[in-house]
Amino acid sequence: MPTFKLTIRYDGTPFAGWQVQPGQATIQGHLQSALRSITGQDIQAVGSGRTDAGVHALGQVASLTLPHWPHGGDALTRALNTHLPETIVVTETVPAADQFHAIRDAVSKRYRYQLQIGGVRDVFDYRYRWHLKGPLAVDAMQRAASHFVGHHDFAGFQAAGGERKTTTRHVRACEIIAQPAADPGRRDLAIEIEADGFLYNMVRNMVGTLVEVGWGKRSADSIPELIQEKDRGAAGQTAPARGLFLLRVDY
Amino acid sequence: MPTFKLTIRYDGTPFAGWQVQPGQATIQGHLQSALRSITGQDIQAVGSGRTDAGVHALGQVASLTLPHWPHGGDALTRALNTHLPETIVVTETVPAADQFHAIRDAVSKRYRYQLQIGGVRDVFDYRYRWHLKGPLAVDAMQRAASHFVGHHDFAGFQAAGGERKTTTRHVRACEIIAQPAADPGRRDLAIEIEADGFLYNMVRNMVGTLVEVGWGKRSADSIPELIQEKDRGAAGQTAPARGLFLLRVDY
Repeated sequence: MPTFKLTIRYDGTPFAGWQVQPGQATIQGHLQSALRSITGQDIQAVGSGRTDAGVHALGQVASLTLPHWPHGGDALTRALNTHLPETIVVTETVPAADQFHAIRDAVSKRYRYQLQIGGVRDVFDYRYRWHLKGPLAVDAMQRAASHFVGHHDFAGFQAAGGERKTTTRHVRACEIIAQPAADPGRRDLAIEIEADGFLYNMVRNMVGTLVEVGWGKRSADSIPELIQEKDRGAAGQTAPARGLFLLRVDY
Repeated sequence: MPTFKLTIRYDGTPFAGWQVQPGQATIQGHLQSALRSITGQDIQAVGSGRTDAGVHALGQVASLTLPHWPHGGDALTRALNTHLPETIVVTETVPAADQFHAIRDAVSKRYRYQLQIGGVRDVFDYRYRWHLKGPLAVDAMQRAASHFVGHHDFAGFQAAGGERKTTTRHVRACEIIAQPAADPGRRDLAIEIEADGFLYNMVRNMVGTLVEVGWGKRSADSIPELIQEKDRGAAGQTAPARGLFLLRVDY
């Protein structure tokens, strides 16, 4: 009964998110259907966490246990990729301990959120970037981002429907990164956030808040007070799913 | 009756090509439908040339004449972009001479073809790149490409269905350009070809031939003889539409 750890990339645009849902195309659904084609059996693929409809991944991690697979990890990668659509790819499959569980054992995750500031809409990149009116005060955003780092109660950044026991998380990094822009008339930015765990919609709510700081609608130094308020209504808008990538899960 | 020159970008993936076809989504069709919404009239948009289904453009050019438009080019750009889908955008609209005609007046065009060599399939970029098994001998491809430059009869590189009076074209540049790769395990290349005009499928047939040189299936110095043969069967395979971009049209 070998257990494997899979690293998976996907373009979330055409999917109703990670988790299997009846009658909907999902990443877990495609993966499990590929496993059924290969093994003839129903195998559960456990993801490190759900990603929502339209959210992408460069390094989603899944764990699974096969009743019988003497061919090794690379052969499983190749077999799965033959059965997966062009928008999903397994980049690595490595043997894991029998008890390995992609959700339970995750110690940290890193997300990237991509922004396009100004310029004409990008007909190639619009699925992967939130297009905003400029200008954005990046210095102020950077200062605001630094206030998110540390152990904080992020209850005010959790969407309704979150059901976590504790809403305190340790944000290890929150960085604004300049990206090369495709056109002279625009600026491309990424916001990367790393934490021991995330509440539902937490990244997208933090990004929405940082953008409002960039526009001057709230000050960078209002963030500590905003965190203290624990009021979802006080924080910024939820950034759209299309700009969000799950970059990495650490174990 | 002001005449305008429009520069247009599009992701060709969802379209049956540039030219209007009944019951099919086309770029010209969307543009003319946007013009109808804005002016209430049937206006013809003349493209610099047809692009095939799945072919993209960074700088397609169209000419059109409106019965009445006192608002200037930028206002027309904005109005059109409001009515166009996310995969099509007008980047510039400038006034042109009454006689300006996007096909007739074009003196030169430049195309780019994008390749991914080796590595896992790219779930984000697969619509814009031909994914090939490596290795590819880029030096040999560069040498082969240089043989295409000059005045030559490209009859052997024209797909069946081409109906041009003369098959001689002046290729001004044929360059192999290294692009930054998204992953360490792969190499990304672009092939850019500029000429006074192109025969049907000429770029895709040249690219298919250059790739066979890269794979060692034919030698770089066999190209002059291949051109002389004027035999479509002797040249390489037609590269898929997805990697091809119309970069620029010069007038």
